[in-house]
Amino acid sequence: MYPPPMSRLIHQLAKLPGIGPKTAQRLAFHVLNVSQEEVGRLAEALLEARHKIDFCEVCGHLTELSPCPICRDEKRKTDLLCVVEEPKDVIAMERTRTYLGHYHVLGGAIAPLEGIGPEELRIKELLARIQTGIYQEVIIATDPNVEGEATALYLAKIMKPFEVKITRLARGLPVGGDLEYIDEITLGKALEGRTEI
Amino acid sequence: MYPPPMSRLIHQLAKLPGIGPKTAQRLAFHVLNVSQEEVGRLAEALLEARHKIDFCEVCGHLTELSPCPICRDEKRKTDLLCVVEEPKDVIAMERTRTYLGHYHVLGGAIAPLEGIGPEELRIKELLARIQTGIYQEVIIATDPNVEGEATALYLAKIMKPFEVKITRLARGLPVGGDLEYIDEITLGKALEGRTEI
Repeated sequence: MYPPPMSRLIHQLAKLPGIGPKTAQRLAFHVLNVSQEEVGRLAEALLEARHKIDFCEVCGHLTELSPCPICRDEKRKTDLLCVVEEPKDVIAMERTRTYLGHYHVLGGAIAPLEGIGPEELRIKELLARIQTGIYQEVIIATDPNVEGEATALYLAKIMKPFEVKITRLARGLPVGGDLEYIDEITLGKALEGRTEI
Repeated sequence: MYPPPMSRLIHQLAKLPGIGPKTAQRLAFHVLNVSQEEVGRLAEALLEARHKIDFCEVCGHLTELSPCPICRDEKRKTDLLCVVEEPKDVIAMERTRTYLGHYHVLGGAIAPLEGIGPEELRIKELLARIQTGIYQEVIIATDPNVEGEATALYLAKIMKPFEVKITRLARGLPVGGDLEYIDEITLGKALEGRTEI
C-alpha cells in the first residue's frame, strides 16, 4: 500500500535489532519529514562507519587504523594487559581514567547455550601475546555475570602455566550486570581493589 | 573514545525519535557486524525514500508520482471523500478493503498546545475540493482522541455551508487510541456504521 521506496525503507529499518514494524514505520515517516541533507548525513555515517572501522589486529578494539591508537600509545604501560569482552568495555574502562595499560578484546564471553566456545573468541591471540613474556600482569575484566565469570575462570586456568600475575576486577561490581552500564567511580574502585585469582 | 566514524554514526542514530544514546550505540555495533552490502541497502533505502517519495498534490498522501495512484484510480467513487490525519491512516483505511472513495490527508490534527491550528493543516485545500461540488459525502475519519474529535467538530462546522453530507466513523472505536493501530474488522465496522454529524 505504501509506495515501494517507503515499503523498502520500512523493511530495511525493521531488520535492525530491537526495531519492530511499527517503530520502523515511525522512523520511516521521520525520514520523510527531515531535510534531504539530514538523511544524507545519516546514510553517509552508516556507510562510513561500516567502511572505515576495522578491528585492531593486536587488541581487537575498534579502530580506523590498525594497530589502534591505544596499542600505539607509547605512554601506556607495556607490561599490563586488561582482557575485556567487547569494544564497548574498552570504552567503559577508558572512562575511568584509572587504567593505563593495554587491552585485549575477546569478542564476547563463553556461552555454550549460544554456541560460543573458546574457539569463537580471541583466546589463541591472547595466549600468543602472553607467551611473548612482556606482561607482568593480566587483569581479567569480563562482565560480572554467569558467562563472564565462566570466561574469567577459563582464562585463569589456561594462563596459569605462564609466569604472569592474573587478577580480576574487585567484587563490588553489581552481579548480573553489564560492564558498560557501570558508572566510572564504581568501575574505578573495582579496578583499584582487584584481587589475584 | 570511539573512532570518529563510529562516534558520528552513534550521534546520527541518536537523533532519530525514540532512539537514546545506548540504543544508538547498540545499533552502531550491529552496523559494524553486518555485511557492507546490507548497510548499503539501508543507506540506499533511506536516500531513495527521502528522494523519491513526495506528497500527492490532490489528497496529500505519500506517492512517487503526483497525483497518487488512489486519486488517479478511475474505478473509485468520485463523489465520496474520506478525511484523515496522516498518510498512515490512509493505509489503515485501505486495509479494510471496505472503502472505495477518495481521501484527503490533513497532515495532523488541531492541537493548540503543540501550536497546530487549522492553518497548519491542509484545510484550505479540503474546502477547495468541497467547493467543486463533486462530493456527495465527506467522511471524517480523524483519530478517536481529543485532538481528532476537536478537528472533526471544527471540520463539520466549516463544511456546514456546503451542500454535502458530513459523516464520521461510528463510535465503537476505542477512545484514546490511534487510528493506525485499530484492527481491520473494527475499522471496517466503524466505517459501515458511520453517523451524520
